[in-house]
Amino acid sequence: MAQKPSTPKGTRDFNPEQVAKRNYIFSTIKSQFETFGFLPIETPSFENSSTLMGKYGEEGDRLIFKILNSGDYLKDLRNDIIDSSSANFIFSVFFDTLILGLDENEEIEDVYDYTLSSLVNDDLGKEINSLVLDFFDEIKEKYILLYKSLENKDENEKRYELIRFKNSCFVDFFKEYLNKLEILNSTKVVSKISEKALRYDLTVPFARYVVQHQNDIDFPFKRYQIQPVWRADRPQNGRFREFYQCDADVVGSKSLWQEVEFVQLYDNVFSALGLKGTTIKINNRKILSGIAEVIGASDKLIDFTVALDKLDKIGEEKVKEEMLSKGIPQDGIDKLQPLFSLTGTFESQIESLKAILSTSEDGKKGIEELDFINKAINELGLQSAILQLDVTLARGLNYYTGAIFEVSAPEGVKMGSIGGGGRYDDLTGIFGLKNVSGVGISFGLDRIYIVLEKLGLFPETITKSTEVLFINFGDNEALFSLKAVKALREKGVKAELYPDSAKMKKQMNYANKRNIPFVVLVGEQEIENNVYTLKNMALGEQSKVSIEELVTAIK
Amino acid sequence: MAQKPSTPKGTRDFNPEQVAKRNYIFSTIKSQFETFGFLPIETPSFENSSTLMGKYGEEGDRLIFKILNSGDYLKDLRNDIIDSSSANFIFSVFFDTLILGLDENEEIEDVYDYTLSSLVNDDLGKEINSLVLDFFDEIKEKYILLYKSLENKDENEKRYELIRFKNSCFVDFFKEYLNKLEILNSTKVVSKISEKALRYDLTVPFARYVVQHQNDIDFPFKRYQIQPVWRADRPQNGRFREFYQCDADVVGSKSLWQEVEFVQLYDNVFSALGLKGTTIKINNRKILSGIAEVIGASDKLIDFTVALDKLDKIGEEKVKEEMLSKGIPQDGIDKLQPLFSLTGTFESQIESLKAILSTSEDGKKGIEELDFINKAINELGLQSAILQLDVTLARGLNYYTGAIFEVSAPEGVKMGSIGGGGRYDDLTGIFGLKNVSGVGISFGLDRIYIVLEKLGLFPETITKSTEVLFINFGDNEALFSLKAVKALREKGVKAELYPDSAKMKKQMNYANKRNIPFVVLVGEQEIENNVYTLKNMALGEQSKVSIEELVTAIK
Repeated sequence: MAQKPSTPKGTRDFNPEQVAKRNYIFSTIKSQFETFGFLPIETPSFENSSTLMGKYGEEGDRLIFKILNSGDYLKDLRNDIIDSSSANFIFSVFFDTLILGLDENEEIEDVYDYTLSSLVNDDLGKEINSLVLDFFDEIKEKYILLYKSLENKDENEKRYELIRFKNSCFVDFFKEYLNKLEILNSTKVVSKISEKALRYDLTVPFARYVVQHQNDIDFPFKRYQIQPVWRADRPQNGRFREFYQCDADVVGSKSLWQEVEFVQLYDNVFSALGLKGTTIKINNRKILSGIAEVIGASDKLIDFTVALDKLDKIGEEKVKEEMLSKGIPQDGIDKLQPLFSLTGTFESQIESLKAILSTSEDGKKGIEELDFINKAINELGLQSAILQLDVTLARGLNYYTGAIFEVSAPEGVKMGSIGGGGRYDDLTGIFGLKNVSGVGISFGLDRIYIVLEKLGLFPETITKSTEVLFINFGDNEALFSLKAVKALREKGVKAELYPDSAKMKKQMNYANKRNIPFVVLVGEQEIENNVYTLKNMALGEQSKVSIEELVTAIK
Repeated sequence: MAQKPSTPKGTRDFNPEQVAKRNYIFSTIKSQFETFGFLPIETPSFENSSTLMGKYGEEGDRLIFKILNSGDYLKDLRNDIIDSSSANFIFSVFFDTLILGLDENEEIEDVYDYTLSSLVNDDLGKEINSLVLDFFDEIKEKYILLYKSLENKDENEKRYELIRFKNSCFVDFFKEYLNKLEILNSTKVVSKISEKALRYDLTVPFARYVVQHQNDIDFPFKRYQIQPVWRADRPQNGRFREFYQCDADVVGSKSLWQEVEFVQLYDNVFSALGLKGTTIKINNRKILSGIAEVIGASDKLIDFTVALDKLDKIGEEKVKEEMLSKGIPQDGIDKLQPLFSLTGTFESQIESLKAILSTSEDGKKGIEELDFINKAINELGLQSAILQLDVTLARGLNYYTGAIFEVSAPEGVKMGSIGGGGRYDDLTGIFGLKNVSGVGISFGLDRIYIVLEKLGLFPETITKSTEVLFINFGDNEALFSLKAVKALREKGVKAELYPDSAKMKKQMNYANKRNIPFVVLVGEQEIENNVYTLKNMALGEQSKVSIEELVTAIK
């Protein structure tokens, strides 16, 4: 029974300090979300598989955690296997007919073919699938060779040998047959034994929510959602199988003021966390399609953006190579040159883009949108973040149709993006509600946590727990202590009585390890005089105080 | 593609109002937990199956949600099925040998037995399982009857008929065989295709946490945990497949002061929620074992407590019937009579119990513990709850060893228990860490929610969202508005700009539906004069104010 217990690969326990720090980030984000008018919703941890499958591409489908059906979940599969066992029967009938009907007067090849075709044309025929036929084809030659080698034997001996051959084929046949059978293919079987799956992100469940509750929702709907998601990714440094997403989205409005507000929201959250100097990178899908249009690669927009997105990671040359390999013409890539050296202020980049994209309607629209957002932000000002145009930003995602956001940590902290988002014109279309535009951003909790930890930005107060410990010298003293503990708790002071009348040293250790600032000692004398001995752990001072004084001193 | 989306059976979406109300309960509980010195931990949503399975009884194992392995999860099962297909081969070899070896000179019964026994003694023998042998036994008689009916036919005809018989048996054989096969039994297969499972409660993961991190934990360890759990129960009125548990436990101390504090904690939480007149029922497992001892049913303690626990639901007579049916002697049940009429104060019940349990050491210990807790609570006082001794309280759970708690809602609200808990002397033993006593309580969020809703106890302020909406009359006006929005948000005021310059009526509707108390109107005039027109929605009054006045007016 004594097993060494552990958490599953890619998951984590959080101790009290970690929970407090994570909650500090959550509550800062939450408070800003609410100040901006976003309302919280929550969706179930698992969804019907049909809600999730096919929404994240093939890779996503693979990484979604599926939940096994309850009860006799194998019933359907078992029936499929039983049905498939008619192949046994066909196998047996075919060879038995062949062997029983030994006829020296006909060519064995003809007998083989004839027997097979009459089987196919028989009632049984409809149960014969191509896997079975392939096998009969495969062993035909072997059978004929064996048959011919038995020319000089008598009928009984012949039969005996042929049946031995049949039975020796039987095992091979079934191994091959079952291995190829679709009903035993892991991917194909999933839908028969699992109809629910764990949430993979918050966007698809949100889209489902909006469509399901569309009659109760008053648009535009500004919602936020802070919940865990699960992905069966290979766990690695900083990538987990269970992690939180913090999303804010607006659906039902195409107004660019939302994009302006999301820039402000990023700035507010990171400023509130004390994280100065973040860069909010912005791009627009229309700029990307404009460029693709101009270089003659409109039909390769995805390939183009996926390659461009890697500029930071693999450099200019490799990006060009990848584009070439995807069939983007060299002269198109040449036209991209100004992009790679696009630097300077937001405004000067806008001017350069105007020159490059002058022939693309899409491109011009994208520029106009970026310009609008930038001008508004310039007017309104940011507290601590910088807004930067990054024309290489594509975020690998195919569903953005307008703005694309990504936030990087302050320079000097090596860390991927700590936030991202964008606009998608048809969020709810996958569930049948057309033309609902959405725009949203997300905060990466785990990365923000690491950055705050690295920069020492967690306030000390957030991990403060018990404020005063009452030493336990016995039941009478404990009861007397609990009267003060009760009074303190009523004032919201975190107060504790050490549960056992253990050795003084052990109890003081408990206080020290937890950095408890005050300790109260109650002995017979204190009870007699109705006072409490209060010790300030930092100063080492102690004094006798009444219950009222105690409350005042600690509070 | 247009599917009508929905949440899975037994799960729920929560809209902003519901989230706010749930968070109000969570944060009240959390705040009291922390005031009492409990520290938060969090554990992953799923655990290794080995951590959970076998910890909740057979019923629990059935109700645990299992997560399908990733990748080619069917591989092992497929190999098992392939291995099992050797039964095909054996079936075929047996009958072929039998039919091929037609021998008029021997009794067919003997041939059948002889062929079978030589097969069993052959190399193949070790692959023959009892399912196959049973089948050969089953059809023996049929085969022999057929054989005898063919007495007058020639050898070829005989063979032909017998092979027809064999092949017709083939399909039946496989249907039966696969249905009985353990490798296709849903319960048996689970461990081959799933190695992770969703958390079923918070207690077992907590025990796992304590054992896993025992070297980092300083005992006594007071932890709280507020997280969802999942159960594949049949969903019904008030019972869900995903729901939150709110647990506080202390491990590593046997002190009864913990029990005293838990009574206070219940009282504090329910008082803070404004829920007056809850009853905290308390019992002690030792009282139950004492009674079982006295009536001569010590070996039937579980049956006895399970029956006694139902007293409220099914009444005295039915409880007695159940006890009798479980083998508890009539004269023992007669001795129980005083229990059924045990009423009066805590103290008078204690006196009655002393009389009943005078011969049981266990019983006397239980009485002593209850008396200690009751006296301490009498000294300390409760704010709004009543502490009541309920000797029928058993909570159906087998792991409590000391105190047992259950809280019922105020009289007049029809609702099951809204909290429960108790002491278990060996919490972590299942994971190899012996002798760690634990005591804890739990709050039932969903039921508390319903009770607060029924009694109208949710404060109105908790669902308050946006405090001021700025009407959008165009881009210039919007930009001017956002300057004030920004200033308001900096002061923590929940402020919003309507995203589109939609019709006035639509925008005002938005404010009305959300009960937004203030609306700000900005037109050309306002921009010119650098003022904002502030409208108080309840009073209908409006006035022109500066940005500073605006902030003061709303804040």
